[in-house]
This record gives sequence, C-alpha cells and structure tokens, in this order.
Amino acid sequence: MIKERLEKLRAVMEREGIDAYLILTQDFHGSEYVGDFFKCRKYMSGFTGSAGSLVVMKDMAGLWTDGRYFLQAEQELKNTGVTLFKMQEEGVPKLSEFLADKLADGAKLGFDGRAVNFKTAQNLNRVFEKKQKKITLVYDMDLVGEIWENRPALAAEPVMLLDLSCTGKSRADKLSDVRAAMEGKKADYFVLSSLDDIAWLLNIRGGDVACNPVVLSYLVMTMDSAILFINEQTLKDQVRQALAADGVAFAPYNAVYDFVKQIPDGKSLYVDEKKTNYAVMMNRGEGVKLLTGDNFTLLPKCIKNKTEVDNERMVHIRDGVAVTKLIYWLKKNIGKTQMTELSVADKFEELRRQQEHYMGPSFEPIVGYAEHGAIIHYSATEESNVELKPSGLVLMDTGGQYLEGTTDITRTVALGELTQEEKEAFTLVLRGNLNLAGAKFKSGICGANLDYLARFPMWERGLDYNHGTGHGVGCFLNVHEGPVSFHWRVREQERTTYTELVEGMVVSDEPGLYFEGKFGIRTENLIVCKKAEKTEYGQFMEFETLTIVPIDLEAVLPEKMSERERELLNTYHSKVYENIAPHLSDDEAAWLKEATRAI
Amino acid sequence: MIKERLEKLRAVMEREGIDAYLILTQDFHGSEYVGDFFKCRKYMSGFTGSAGSLVVMKDMAGLWTDGRYFLQAEQELKNTGVTLFKMQEEGVPKLSEFLADKLADGAKLGFDGRAVNFKTAQNLNRVFEKKQKKITLVYDMDLVGEIWENRPALAAEPVMLLDLSCTGKSRADKLSDVRAAMEGKKADYFVLSSLDDIAWLLNIRGGDVACNPVVLSYLVMTMDSAILFINEQTLKDQVRQALAADGVAFAPYNAVYDFVKQIPDGKSLYVDEKKTNYAVMMNRGEGVKLLTGDNFTLLPKCIKNKTEVDNERMVHIRDGVAVTKLIYWLKKNIGKTQMTELSVADKFEELRRQQEHYMGPSFEPIVGYAEHGAIIHYSATEESNVELKPSGLVLMDTGGQYLEGTTDITRTVALGELTQEEKEAFTLVLRGNLNLAGAKFKSGICGANLDYLARFPMWERGLDYNHGTGHGVGCFLNVHEGPVSFHWRVREQERTTYTELVEGMVVSDEPGLYFEGKFGIRTENLIVCKKAEKTEYGQFMEFETLTIVPIDLEAVLPEKMSERERELLNTYHSKVYENIAPHLSDDEAAWLKEATRAI
Repeated sequence: MIKERLEKLRAVMEREGIDAYLILTQDFHGSEYVGDFFKCRKYMSGFTGSAGSLVVMKDMAGLWTDGRYFLQAEQELKNTGVTLFKMQEEGVPKLSEFLADKLADGAKLGFDGRAVNFKTAQNLNRVFEKKQKKITLVYDMDLVGEIWENRPALAAEPVMLLDLSCTGKSRADKLSDVRAAMEGKKADYFVLSSLDDIAWLLNIRGGDVACNPVVLSYLVMTMDSAILFINEQTLKDQVRQALAADGVAFAPYNAVYDFVKQIPDGKSLYVDEKKTNYAVMMNRGEGVKLLTGDNFTLLPKCIKNKTEVDNERMVHIRDGVAVTKLIYWLKKNIGKTQMTELSVADKFEELRRQQEHYMGPSFEPIVGYAEHGAIIHYSATEESNVELKPSGLVLMDTGGQYLEGTTDITRTVALGELTQEEKEAFTLVLRGNLNLAGAKFKSGICGANLDYLARFPMWERGLDYNHGTGHGVGCFLNVHEGPVSFHWRVREQERTTYTELVEGMVVSDEPGLYFEGKFGIRTENLIVCKKAEKTEYGQFMEFETLTIVPIDLEAVLPEKMSERERELLNTYHSKVYENIAPHLSDDEAAWLKEATRAI
Repeated sequence: MIKERLEKLRAVMEREGIDAYLILTQDFHGSEYVGDFFKCRKYMSGFTGSAGSLVVMKDMAGLWTDGRYFLQAEQELKNTGVTLFKMQEEGVPKLSEFLADKLADGAKLGFDGRAVNFKTAQNLNRVFEKKQKKITLVYDMDLVGEIWENRPALAAEPVMLLDLSCTGKSRADKLSDVRAAMEGKKADYFVLSSLDDIAWLLNIRGGDVACNPVVLSYLVMTMDSAILFINEQTLKDQVRQALAADGVAFAPYNAVYDFVKQIPDGKSLYVDEKKTNYAVMMNRGEGVKLLTGDNFTLLPKCIKNKTEVDNERMVHIRDGVAVTKLIYWLKKNIGKTQMTELSVADKFEELRRQQEHYMGPSFEPIVGYAEHGAIIHYSATEESNVELKPSGLVLMDTGGQYLEGTTDITRTVALGELTQEEKEAFTLVLRGNLNLAGAKFKSGICGANLDYLARFPMWERGLDYNHGTGHGVGCFLNVHEGPVSFHWRVREQERTTYTELVEGMVVSDEPGLYFEGKFGIRTENLIVCKKAEKTEYGQFMEFETLTIVPIDLEAVLPEKMSERERELLNTYHSKVYENIAPHLSDDEAAWLKEATRAI
C-alpha cells in the first residue's frame, strides 16, 4: 500500500520536475498537535509516531525520527521501501545534509510551503549554501494532497464566542492594542498565523486541534481592517455578526496566500517568523518591507488579566474537586475494584465531566503505573495498558479545558506500602515543588533565575530530571503557551527562559524524578505570578498556587523536609481542605481532613 | 588656570579646524583604573572624580558626570568656565545628543582615538546618523598632550616574569593555544589590547596601573610571530631574553597604530571590539577582513588551572592570617587605642606586608565606620575620615596582591554592643553568603541561575542590595576579571551573567545591606568552582570557599538561621580555625577558638 502511494507520488513529482519531495509533521500554523488532514507523513510512510520527516526521491524514500521512535519505526516501515534514518546516531546524516549531498547541482526540492515552518526551510537553504549546492525550493505545491484518496477533511468545528466575563477584555480593545503596537513598529500589515494567538485576540474558541480549543484560520490586520481567513461554514450568524461588528471581515481559509502576494510594494509587513510558514513568508513581493518580531499578541496573551486570574482560581476549585474525588476513589478501591491505566484516565474524564463548564481534556492524559511512571512521555495504549495493584506509585498527569480556564496537574499517588527509596524520591520532588512556589523575588526576574529552587533537592544528591521545570499555560487555550517558562538554560536565541515574570503569568511548577524500570514521580501545580509589596528597594513578586489538590502524605518523609518546607506544605493543605471539602460527600471530606493534616 | 588651559586647547583646535574636542576618562586599553598620564580630563577641567567626560568648543566647555559627583563637581568647576551637565537629571541632554544638536552639519569632532573605546565612538556615530547630522570624527590627534606642560610620564615600571610554579602553564603553551584558536577562526592577525590579557598570556606582570599588576603594551599575533608593543626600557635583559625565546619580538609602544595600518589587504584581523580603542579599529585598511569576538585569552584566563587554584588556597591562608590578626587587634584595642578609618586601612597594609610574597593592595581599601558603611563606593579621605568608637559596625573591604594570587575580602565587624536591627541585617547577609557558597548544581549553570541564593533572605523581607553578588577575580591580576559573575540580570548583550560556571573559575560572593545614614553590612568571600560527583544525570559542580577569615559571631542571630545554614557556618569556621590558628600567637589563637565556636 505504502509502495503504491510512493509510486503515485513519484509520478506527480516527475510531472512537476521535482527531484526530492519533503514531508514534515507540521500543520499550516506550527501547532503542537496536528489534525488528521495534515498527517501526510503518516499517509505516505505508514509511520505513526508524533515526530518524523520523510524524503521521497526517485530511487529512495527515507524517514528521519528520534530515539523515542526507533523501535516503532522499524516495525512500521517494514516492507514499505522506506529507509529509517536514526537521528543523532553515529554516521547517520542529518536530513538537510543528506539532501545537500544526494541532490545534484540545480536540483529541485519540492514541499508544501504551508506545512513547513519558515525557519526550517531557511535552515535547509543555509546548509545547501554551505555545501555550495544550488538547489531550488519549490514550495507552491501539495503533491501528497493530489494523490491522497479519501483524505480526511480539514477540521471545521463550529466557532464559539467567549464572553467578556471569560476574557476580561473586549475584542475591540484587543484589536486596538494591536494596532497601537503596529503603529509603534510602523507596520502597515500584520499577519498572524498561530492559532492560539488568533483565538485569544478575537475572543473566539473552536475545536480544530485536539485538546487545543482553536480555530483553523489566519488573521491579517491593517490599521483599519482585519481579515479572518477561515472556512466560513464554521461561523454561525451570531458569531459572524459579532466579529463583523468589531470590523472583522472574512475570506476563504487558503486565500491568505494570494492576499499576501497582493500587498503593495513599499508597504511594510510585520510577522513573527518563528511562527509563520514558508509559503506566507515567500509569497510577499520583493518590494514589501519585512518587519519581524514576536507576535503583538504574545505577551498580552501570556499576562492574564484580573478576570482571567479570578476565573482560573474558580476553575481550579472545580478541577480540584474532580481530582480529589479521583484520588479518594483510587485509595478506597485499589485492590477491590479492577482498574487499569486506561480506566483511571476514563475516570478522570468522568469526574471532570461532572464539573461546570468542562469542555474536555487539555492534553492526552498520562496515567503511568509503577515503571510506566518513569517514561516521561508515556501515554497508555491498549497494548501497554496495565492493571493497577495495591502497591507502589501511580503518576497521573492530566488537565481540563473549562470555559473559564485551563488546568494541568500531576499527582503521584501511593497505592500501597512504599519503599524508603520511593518515599525519599517523592519527598525530594515535593521539596522542589514547594520551594519554587514559595519564591519571593524582585520584579525583573525571569524563569532561569528561579529554576534552581525546584532542582536543588535533587542536585544536592546528584539526581536530576531531564525536562523543564515549568511552562506557561493558556486560559481556556493551549496548555503549553509561551514565552514564559522555568528552565535554568539561558540561550541567546531562546527568549523563553529570560521572559520577565509579570503579574498574571500562569506557569506550571513540575519537578520530577524518574527511575527507569522502577517508578516515576512528578508533582505539578499551576502557579500564578503576583505582585507582593513595593518597598524602597523595588517591586517584589511572589506566586499563588492555583492547583488545589492534596499531595499524598503517605509518600512524604516529614523528617527530610526543612521547617519552612513543612510550613509551606501545611499552609497549602489547609487551603486545599478549605476550598475542596465543601464540594465533597461526608466520607470524602472526612478522608480529605486526614489527607491534609499538618505534618 | 583651567581657563588658560582651555584657551590654549581652543587655539590648537582652531589650528586643526576642530569644532569640538572630546576628553573622556579612559586609557588606551579600557582599563578600570587609569594612570596619571591619562588624566587629561582632570587636567583640562580641574574635576577629580573617577567618572566624567569633557567637551570643549569655541564658546563653551561642558562636563558630564553622574549623581555620585554632582556636589564635588560643582565645587571643583567653580570659576573654570566649565558648565556641569548632571547626567540622568531631567532636561539634561546626553553628551552625544548635545553634540549632535549643537554642532553644525559638516563639523569636525576631535579626540584622541586611542583613549576612546570603539563602542563609545560607534555610539556617537549612531546618534549623529539618527539626528541626520554629518559630523566627522577626527581621532588621530592628542591636542591635550600638545598643551599639557609637565605632563606626567607614561608609567614605565619594570616588567617581571612569572614562574611556571605561579602560572601553571608556560608562555609557549599559551601562545600555541591562542594560535590554535586563531586557526579555528581563520584569523591572520590578532590584536590584543586589554592589559590583563597580555600579562596573563605572556606570564609577565608589572605595575603600570594602580593595584593592577599589568604592563602598558599591545600584543599583535600572527600564526608565526608575536610582537609586543612596549616601552622597551621596562624590559630587563633577562625578561627580554625569556620572551624572545618564545618568539616574542618588540616594537615601540605607540608603533602599534602604524602596524595596524600596514596589515595587507585580504588578510583577516581578529579583535574584541568591546576591548579595543577606536584608533586601533579605524587604522585598519578597508581591504582587511575584520573578525570580532571575545579575546581568545578571555576564558582561559578566567578558568584557573590546578597550579593557580592550589596557589590561591595558599595565598588565602596568608591573607587570612593578616585579616584575622587585624580583627583581633580591632576587637582588643577599640576604645583603648585611637583608630580611624584611614589608620585601620594602614593597619591592613602593615599586617599584609608581613605575609610572604605580598605585592600590594588589589584595590583601594574601603574602611567605612557606622553610616560610612552604607556608602557602597566609600573610600575614606582626609576630609571624610572618622574615628572608630566601641559601638556599631565597621565595614572593611580590602584585598591583596601576592605573587601567587589575588584576594578580595569584606568583613563587617561589631565594635561594641549591636542593636537588634544590626544583628538581623547581618544575619540576612550572612545567610545569603552561605547559601550561595553552599550551592550544588549541574554543569552548564551560570551565575544568573544562582544569584537568587544570595538574595532571597533579603528579598523575603522586601530588602535588596543594589550591586552584583559577585565578580570574577584574577590570579595575581585584576581584582575585577570577566566574564564570570553573579547577577540575576540576563541581558542579551551582556554575556557576563550567562557565562557557564566552569571548574577553576574564582568568583566573589558578596551580598550586602545598606541603610543610609545608619550602617552598612557586606560579607565577602572568594569561592572557586569545582567538579563534584558525576552521575548518570551528568556532571555536578560545587564551590570551595577560598577566603579563610572568621565571621563575627557577635553580630549573628543563630535562631534566625536554618539548621543547614548554621551547619555551613560551623563547617566554615572549623576550617578557619584549623588553617589560621597555627600562624597566630597564643592569645590570638585562643581568641580565634572562641570566635569560630560552633553555634
């Protein structure tokens, strides 16, 4: 089947005079998750992993993927004629170098420029130039689309409006802020491609990307117009009218490419080149003055306003009730009722669905029992699914979308007697979590300045976790939202770790420890940055913990914590009891009382 | 007198067709301190402060300086005809803007391009361009030199060779490393202007800048030659022969400018433009390919080798003996013997001079009693000098140059009963100092990741100190040495706070608290970065404290410290007693025993 598809692709490649065709795993908007319509690489290779790049040439087809997927790719590529290139392995060329070496001078490399990020294509050009190969990028084609029979349709979920009581700021005010920023940069046109930015700016939500309540669209703004390029069938009259009332006009989704071509010479075009695809960038005329920088929506979206923060607090009580009930259910039923990783994930969904304004999961739930907890990106499948037993730890990283906010919480829960090793590791992770949330700092500080607080309990013992300490979180939007984050790394080209922490930024605080083949631990809360006192030394800042769910005291060694750390935990647990107990049954509340006792 | 000098300068300006003449406070090498030869601004204006820029035009003369010097400048500029421009005050133009506004199109701005940093001059050009003024920079002149009667001679202290037992690496090996780096950058020529880099690279020391044991010179390297531009009278035969044996040739100090002019077209020239003066940069021919980046010596100089670190340990015992004796003397004699800030500074010098291989102070000593301790850059003068009394705190920040290393230590000492406020502040500062020195961290971490550790005790109480937490320190070289440092600020253009901490880097750890009109506290040790264990999670790092001098327990509130902080202090004090007591008299040792008791 794959072989046939490759032959068909080669036929259209030949017709178009294309020597190599490149198929990545991106949608047109650089989204973290992509819809079925965009899964060209999977269709053409049979490889189903979440990361991989396919090159098809006359005499070969090759798939590049990383260590997480070597085994899976080997199996899935069997008898397809597609060669596996194991990234980072010794002697395996990078995709760009492979192309530079293999293609002849003057060759043509084709790809769908809408599904390739500008920076990625630029990097190809850089490598070709370095290797002194003249290779033309032909980006104005979708050859897979031509041969793909029964290609899934583009997602076209109905668009909903978000009320001012959810957004805290009207669409008109947001548009006006963007125009003020455009004026500051002398930008005549502003093209916005990233879907969460568009949803935030227009106070709309949709369901076009799994777990991300966004709408497939592009937005182009000038000082007196705003055109939303969108499948108009997704717009009910009421939505259309509300947008139109704020000066938003509509055009077909793919018409944005012709629009960009027609921007007059001499005008200036502002884009965030990190978040824009190659086709949008290259379609501009040579006489158009290009201005680049962060999207004007990036920081305003990240800095939640008072309404949003108040809503987040409310949502986290609802979510906290669901998760607390789940932990109670786990503790009471483990060993009595049969439960598996998948059934626990279902139980999360069931309990969250009982909460007001629950809209669905904010990402694919992770429920990893025992050694599965040590696999950081684990997500149970029918094949990997195991039964939970009354011993050891289960790591549960889940989250919900609510009309008023987004949650993301990890709790690791003892299902029976734990070993000293498990308790020690749990306590280290907890200490990291508490110390970061308990930080008090000066205005101007960024995530890189504070990351040490979450890691030092591990570092003191020669341990570490191989992921960031925290990521920004959207408000009824993407659960991974830049630019704020916690990581110690400061790189010149990555602004995320030196984005100043500002009142209203919501970030996760999620240190962990992972022991392969044994168990994994992560404790994750969302925290929001707030102003503390202002003194003659400046404005001081602190965090408030939004997530309100007990931390399993059965896994804690109080004697391994400092007095301050115990105080931080006890204060947190008082708050949990106070906010969650009123929403529980008597049995649950009695259990919670004990589960949140001072230590 | 000043008026006459200005008239003379205007006469030569007119002769040269110069409309404005600019006089900064820099030597030819961007040194932190400048010798008397370079004090043109003081000669021309009468203003003696350490920072200030003078502009002389036909009808005006203006001096720009900052808030520290407003009072002093007003007094010193009286009746000179020089107008004071108070920097940062509202309505006061910046020097560059003043020039751009006041000079006519086509005007000529003159200055000694050797005494103006390249970046400074570039900034002038940028402002002129922005204001659309065509102003020519004429940098090939020293008009003050022409009219300066009895100008002090350029420093010409004898050059000494440093033995391999001091440097741990031969000159030949260092030169060979630089050439390898040049090869990596395809650099045909490398011009090195910063004096500590030259001294380090050639294993020489001198005395041409106060407190910095450097030699006025430039070094130009090619793949097979090295030319030292220097006053050859400072080279004894033995020194000359040793340098020549490693392929170093000599040329007159100022001949470097003609040399740069003669670099052939098509050749590449590598310089650190942040550390090079305008004349060197502009003298290159247009056909010379300019390569810029950090000096090749920057990191190797900062990362001390095993010999250097071992020597630093030894030197810090000697220095610790001197400072411990001083504290003993203070404690025993306060209220009995008359002592002033200046006499205490003299006592430091007297006690250090008794130590082996002491070469002089590493910076001007700061001894600030009571409210003088709150003035961060305080240095007692005959006018400000006060008597020390048996009450309150004295802050003493001093350091020494030894043949094998450089010290920099601050101790704040109780001279009598302290208030609770003083003790609380002292304890906060101590906690910051201990926590930073006690850090354990992963390889890759930089100063910005750790700064929080020194500040959080203050930040938790809405307090702060308005200076960096630490700076790199040379080895028998400059007491302020880049690029390593501790500060929370991460700026794209300042690499100092994201220089990775590497084994062998010596940095100061000096949090403080300053209460204007009352008292100031700072506790400063030098710490050296070392490898700790390597685990499956990576290479871990820690600090060893080099400075070995007791911290005044009479100012400490043990109950305000965590258990770990008390442990860190007790461990430190054990080490102090063990290393210092053997070098003390019986009385001193008995006192030290008590002064380093566990708390």
